[in-house]
Amino acid sequence: MKGEHADIHLVLGGARSGKSAHAEALARESGLDRIYLATSQAFDAEMEERIRRHRDERAADDWTTVEEPLDLPGALKIHASPGAIVLVDCLTLWVTNLMMAGRDVEADCRSLLRVLEEGPGGPVIFVSNEVGLGIVPDNAMARAFRDHAGRLNQLVASAANEVTFVAAGCPLILKPRG
Amino acid sequence: MKGEHADIHLVLGGARSGKSAHAEALARESGLDRIYLATSQAFDAEMEERIRRHRDERAADDWTTVEEPLDLPGALKIHASPGAIVLVDCLTLWVTNLMMAGRDVEADCRSLLRVLEEGPGGPVIFVSNEVGLGIVPDNAMARAFRDHAGRLNQLVASAANEVTFVAAGCPLILKPRG
Amino acid sequence: MKGEHADIHLVLGGARSGKSAHAEALARESGLDRIYLATSQAFDAEMEERIRRHRDERAADDWTTVEEPLDLPGALKIHASPGAIVLVDCLTLWVTNLMMAGRDVEADCRSLLRVLEEGPGGPVIFVSNEVGLGIVPDNAMARAFRDHAGRLNQLVASAANEVTFVAAGCPLILKPRG
Repeated sequence: MKGEHADIHLVLGGARSGKSAHAEALARESGLDRIYLATSQAFDAEMEERIRRHRDERAADDWTTVEEPLDLPGALKIHASPGAIVLVDCLTLWVTNLMMAGRDVEADCRSLLRVLEEGPGGPVIFVSNEVGLGIVPDNAMARAFRDHAGRLNQLVASAANEVTFVAAGCPLILKPRG
Repeated sequence: MKGEHADIHLVLGGARSGKSAHAEALARESGLDRIYLATSQAFDAEMEERIRRHRDERAADDWTTVEEPLDLPGALKIHASPGAIVLVDCLTLWVTNLMMAGRDVEADCRSLLRVLEEGPGGPVIFVSNEVGLGIVPDNAMARAFRDHAGRLNQLVASAANEVTFVAAGCPLILKPRG
Repeated sequence: MKGEHADIHLVLGGARSGKSAHAEALARESGLDRIYLATSQAFDAEMEERIRRHRDERAADDWTTVEEPLDLPGALKIHASPGAIVLVDCLTLWVTNLMMAGRDVEADCRSLLRVLEEGPGGPVIFVSNEVGLGIVPDNAMARAFRDHAGRLNQLVASAANEVTFVAAGCPLILKPRG
């Protein structure tokens, strides 16, 4: 079976927690070719400039950057392979993009889960924000986002071999490799 | 003494963290009769329908559902018993109900603590939200809620034999059974 | 070298998580003289009264209280010494004060880091809020605060010998003493 040895790692944390830096270090430690699958999309010139700068920095550090704001399941099927490690940064931005595009978020999350269960073809590290530990937001859209993000984190964690929580740059294993 | 062997477990987590599902699994693993002590109350027809549907699902799964939005200490004294396990879902909703009813929240929390310290008469699992890990809310009511919820979590944790934090469906022991 | 044996401990947690009580217990357990370095500043009479009351309570409990809302690096150089333990409560309030005073927060954080790396001259416990685990705040100032606080927590954690996360009064080691 294709997915038998697929290695899926979820790195969860708050804003400015150091989760992306931790995920990048994990990818470097793997010794594999590194593919950065960015879900961010530029909504203005400033953001475009920032994204471009990050991409150039990663290129200098031997990453291949792929950008896919919406079809993450499809992008994983194309880019995951045994000789490379894919870092998806990040799931919560993907949820935002799906909501802004008026997509059926639950259906897209199930598609992603299906790819993970079938085996994406190679190791994948997902970065995601934990967003449910503050008070209930006033705003209905923010509540819906929080629900979608929380459910997606659970789905990906259930399929993952390892789940790590990062706070203040310190990693804490939530689900140890079996 | 009545409370000597009482077993109190606090399951803490964010919104959509899988904390309730984890608590329900713990209750099922106990092998005891299961009582679901719901603190939710319907404020409109839609919520009434949702509560009714959840109650029917639990009934099919062999739970007895009890609803008590305000007198949680009293309900525990009535329903806790050595042959059953009571799952209280959830403490943060109870705080909301107390505040909306204009009750003295601190006094009610002390009453709950007294029941736990005297021994509620049988094992209890409490589900609660951690709500203090976002930025300070603008709204004074939300800040008061956050303070009450945080203090109640500390009180129940101090009386508990075990405290578990759940994130992305992964349980993490915060206070191990001694 | 001055800093060789300096002991730096970061205690991180949410609002009403019990983080300050945990930090105070750690300071008491050290057996050293205790200096409470408060970053809070009174903006009105009520707050002045509250701060005064807390200071009196600590004095009765053998703490020396020092107040420094802005120059935390300088205050550490003055007050840290081998025979005493300094408890800084808290870093997030310090960030708030710096922002309200229109300071260059990043530069002040780097000054603090420099003091920690050179060795502050004696053991220090820092209390700080984790504020990045809720949804993105609407308000630009709140987002900037969240970014500053998160980055500062990472800086202090990187210089610390030990990092503890506190939830519901339960301490969890994030970075164990090596």
